[in-house]
Amino acid sequence: MNLLIENARLVTMQEGEMGYLPSPPARVGIQSGKIIAVSTTERGKDAVQSESVLSPNQYDQTIDLNSKLLMPGLIDCHTHLVYAGNRSNEFEMRLNGVPYEEIAQQGGGILSTVHATRKATQEELIELALPRLDGLLASGVTSVEVKSGYGLTLHDEIKMLRAAKALEKERKVKITTTLLAAHAIPPEYKDRADDYITHICDDIIPLVAQENLATSVDVFCESIGFNLVQTERVFQSAKQHGLSIKGHTEQLSNLGGTALTAQYQGLSADHIEYLDETGVLALKNSSTVATLLPGAFYYLRETQLPPIESLRKHNIPMAIATDINPGTSPFADLTLMMNMACTLFRLTPQEALRGVTENAAKALGYGKSRGVIEVGFDADFSIWDIEHPADLSYQVGAKRLVGRIVNGEYVSHGGR
Amino acid sequence: MNLLIENARLVTMQEGEMGYLPSPPARVGIQSGKIIAVSTTERGKDAVQSESVLSPNQYDQTIDLNSKLLMPGLIDCHTHLVYAGNRSNEFEMRLNGVPYEEIAQQGGGILSTVHATRKATQEELIELALPRLDGLLASGVTSVEVKSGYGLTLHDEIKMLRAAKALEKERKVKITTTLLAAHAIPPEYKDRADDYITHICDDIIPLVAQENLATSVDVFCESIGFNLVQTERVFQSAKQHGLSIKGHTEQLSNLGGTALTAQYQGLSADHIEYLDETGVLALKNSSTVATLLPGAFYYLRETQLPPIESLRKHNIPMAIATDINPGTSPFADLTLMMNMACTLFRLTPQEALRGVTENAAKALGYGKSRGVIEVGFDADFSIWDIEHPADLSYQVGAKRLVGRIVNGEYVSHGGR
Ligand SMILES: [Zn+2]
Ligand SMILES: [Zn+2]
Repeated sequence: MNLLIENARLVTMQEGEMGYLPSPPARVGIQSGKIIAVSTTERGKDAVQSESVLSPNQYDQTIDLNSKLLMPGLIDCHTHLVYAGNRSNEFEMRLNGVPYEEIAQQGGGILSTVHATRKATQEELIELALPRLDGLLASGVTSVEVKSGYGLTLHDEIKMLRAAKALEKERKVKITTTLLAAHAIPPEYKDRADDYITHICDDIIPLVAQENLATSVDVFCESIGFNLVQTERVFQSAKQHGLSIKGHTEQLSNLGGTALTAQYQGLSADHIEYLDETGVLALKNSSTVATLLPGAFYYLRETQLPPIESLRKHNIPMAIATDINPGTSPFADLTLMMNMACTLFRLTPQEALRGVTENAAKALGYGKSRGVIEVGFDADFSIWDIEHPADLSYQVGAKRLVGRIVNGEYVSHGGR
Repeated sequence: MNLLIENARLVTMQEGEMGYLPSPPARVGIQSGKIIAVSTTERGKDAVQSESVLSPNQYDQTIDLNSKLLMPGLIDCHTHLVYAGNRSNEFEMRLNGVPYEEIAQQGGGILSTVHATRKATQEELIELALPRLDGLLASGVTSVEVKSGYGLTLHDEIKMLRAAKALEKERKVKITTTLLAAHAIPPEYKDRADDYITHICDDIIPLVAQENLATSVDVFCESIGFNLVQTERVFQSAKQHGLSIKGHTEQLSNLGGTALTAQYQGLSADHIEYLDETGVLALKNSSTVATLLPGAFYYLRETQLPPIESLRKHNIPMAIATDINPGTSPFADLTLMMNMACTLFRLTPQEALRGVTENAAKALGYGKSRGVIEVGFDADFSIWDIEHPADLSYQVGAKRLVGRIVNGEYVSHGGR
């Protein structure tokens, strides 16, 4: 199967200002799920292609985009998309003035999600994730990272990872899975966090690696999560088993988790509201991406801003993700996160778009194959009926996604 | 045409806690666009209906909702949905650090929208509004108020109102139009605001009333808009011509516009971040609804909160709307506004839902015909695949709207 896209105004997201400015109408050739040719002559680095490679009679199928914008498919590089249970009742109780302790006593908080997720079958988890996934796809997403972390047993963590991966059979989307067994201390290990870490390192990580159920391992490194020593044990085990590393770090306090993640060549350090200059410099000396999660910032009414100016100054790549989860970021719209990144964190629309394309790809280890329109990269695109890429960050809710292309296959989104 | 809805868990939004709690599976009979019977026996005030009225063989068509939630259609009671031009460039310039003065010099601000709207034809305005309208409809909306205010000439204000009304031919939705000629001082009347008010009162309002182009008249009463005397002149003219009154009041400062609106029995006073206790008491002694616009609050990074606690204490009905407009609230999703009302203003999910149903209906003068599921009311519904009404405020983006019913006619929204 191959496909020729015609009359597309490209926003390639290649490095530099030109990668952000829409090109004149251009052609893109796709074969076997990869970009094989791009006709934007005079612009971008691998621009000039022989005309013959882009001749319509070389292709089975042609799509004329009528000058619509063709961008890389958006990438949501941090989600907890798969879970069971509903915590709107907690949201409602809190707003009705019920004290936190009482909500916890009634079984609220993360353990309520753990409880419901353990009870659910893999099929039920898939079914429950679909309306949320559909929200993401309708915001232009073609790749989604999904973490485990509500099972907290070998069996249930694996069930979550399998459910996540199975979403690829339900929708046109690419799923990347991350083991987050170190998300919370399971009730069975109450006051025995170190023993749980041992279980993760000795049992869960080896099996997940062996069965290829995840490509990364993540840890919630926080006073209410796992400490630095525990985090490092998980990172070491992940490394031993050939898995990449990610961290939930510096969300509520400054423990040094980001620096540790950077030291272990982690793919990304995520949240980082409380990151200090030492942490920023650690990122600078690594290839670790700084992932911003403005949905959680907004929902928790956090006031401590991530150190954007310092990240900018040191040229640290910033990604943006939904962090969709039932407790702190119930938001299934990646463009809403772009708007929040601009409005709340003062990112520019260009930074926000890089945060869900180029840099989000890097945060998943796909920096050489996704997030940019370039010959040799995956043929994953989002097609927009907008004038300028800034519109994506500026406006929320308006129907402007024309369609998506995943692995060279087109999906309509009611485009006009 | 008549229609029987079966197996609907009703959230009637009738007064009191029961109106918010989903009923057991029930039936609703619809004839000629009105609710003629509701079978929720034992619950709600006009609950008990004779079974014969709800017998399937009385109806042309039957829909089985399989226990999905049936709510009143949501009502967006304050929008500037119709406009031309794009201000994502201003958003981008601001975030790139371009000073406000320079943006204004480059023709930014409201007058750029006025300029583009004047140049657009009625057909173009309709075409441009549709993706935004589709966003609102996908969030469960069945009634939308649309204001003029970017024409600022007799001709262009009328063009906007006609474009707004014509949206009813493009989509299944009810449009209510409001004349907002007093939105800004047009360039032709620079330094002659009083003369422009005279033009509004003597020429625009009489014609709009005569041609039935709007049901209400609104004024931007603000230091950067129109003062109290000017506002009152417009209100008097509106009243003389039999039109209802609305106000953009106390958004940026406390001028007393809300009290004036209440004094003129206005339908609603909108924004009201800077409303003081005197203003709240003026609302208390009127039937004027307090309309909260959290999208503008969020987008402008306002820190002055509307006096929610005082409004609550005095039982003043609170509505919530998108205020969708290109300069201060580019958000086409009413459930996002419900979430912001809860997260930023600390409304409860029940208050948020009343704000887009019962109270939004009141804010449009439809308190006796819309916003509640009750015999005799309009057959406008939203159908949701959620467990609890609080889910609507809690989560954003997930696809959970099954369909809408407008005037008794069903529209699918890809419901599962
Ligand atoms: Zn997370
Ligand atoms: Zn407004």
